Amino acid sequence: MGKTALLVIDVQKGLDEPSWGKRNNPQAESNIALLLSQWRKHGLPIVHIRHCSVMPNSPLRLELPGNAFKDEARPLAGEKLFSKSVNSAFIGTGLEQYLREQDISSLVIVGLTTDHCVSTSVRMAGNLGFDVTLVSDATATFDRQGYDGVRYSADDIHKINLVSLDGEFCAVRSTEEVLKQLT
Amino acid sequence: MGKTALLVIDVQKGLDEPSWGKRNNPQAESNIALLLSQWRKHGLPIVHIRHCSVMPNSPLRLELPGNAFKDEARPLAGEKLFSKSVNSAFIGTGLEQYLREQDISSLVIVGLTTDHCVSTSVRMAGNLGFDVTLVSDATATFDRQGYDGVRYSADDIHKINLVSLDGEFCAVRSTEEVLKQLT
Repeated sequence: MGKTALLVIDVQKGLDEPSWGKRNNPQAESNIALLLSQWRKHGLPIVHIRHCSVMPNSPLRLELPGNAFKDEARPLAGEKLFSKSVNSAFIGTGLEQYLREQDISSLVIVGLTTDHCVSTSVRMAGNLGFDVTLVSDATATFDRQGYDGVRYSADDIHKINLVSLDGEFCAVRSTEEVLKQLT
Repeated sequence: MGKTALLVIDVQKGLDEPSWGKRNNPQAESNIALLLSQWRKHGLPIVHIRHCSVMPNSPLRLELPGNAFKDEARPLAGEKLFSKSVNSAFIGTGLEQYLREQDISSLVIVGLTTDHCVSTSVRMAGNLGFDVTLVSDATATFDRQGYDGVRYSADDIHKINLVSLDGEFCAVRSTEEVLKQLT
């Protein structure tokens, strides 16, 4: 049995800009802060992922203030950090190799956004053979305009994306359930 | 400008078993057959992906009749085929290397199922830098029981998964739109 790392994806200030649309799960950041504090208390491994967009208009570009981590998710000295420029935390980074070297076989994944960077990273983690837990109330997304002209709510997008992931790529659990398993 | 390949994912007989649940888009296979015939007529590259499950109870195991391609999607001699055992067509296969060697920079993706193997392969293709079109009426999925106890319909799962992919990882288009662009 390898170790279980907390993988925190893209909890960055630029995702607070109103242009992203309406968000669900406003409590995601406080749940992430709670999970981080418990991982630190137990001395368990933590991996931070930072999105450094290469899109011209993204607030997550490396040189912009929006690239900074939100206060609830700021890495401490000594915690591992990978930067990426696409959705998957496993593409263009050394993440997979690092996890294998550290004997980390399980991941608890949190962060933003549910259906873009989180879903893509969960899928690749599961397909690469990691045992993945995705924390339903420690991730969130935005409402989106559909290809079919319909506006879909952040909550519907969030729920159905979790339904598609659960049991196939990961187990979906709440913050409370994850914390209970930890103690 | 590289070439555009048609990537056909997991159109196999084992996915007709009733145990998968209720499906949407019954016309997906006839649209896939139509796209295949047009790709062949124009001499464009075609890549077939076959799922060879390693799960004990899957009808898609290599030694079972359900592993066979459906009639609408049977590869012809000379067409490229990759076998995989996880959702992503890019993990554990030589697909990425093959596409780069063949100067294929664009993919039109069809097959089964929308939210599992198709979504995962579309996400990785987009993140690896390919220009991806996902054909909305040439893919389909099944209804699923949610982690929250709610039953979600195949059509809702299908639509919202396409909404999450469109504009971020791919362009979602209909069979008719893709065929119009081809001629």
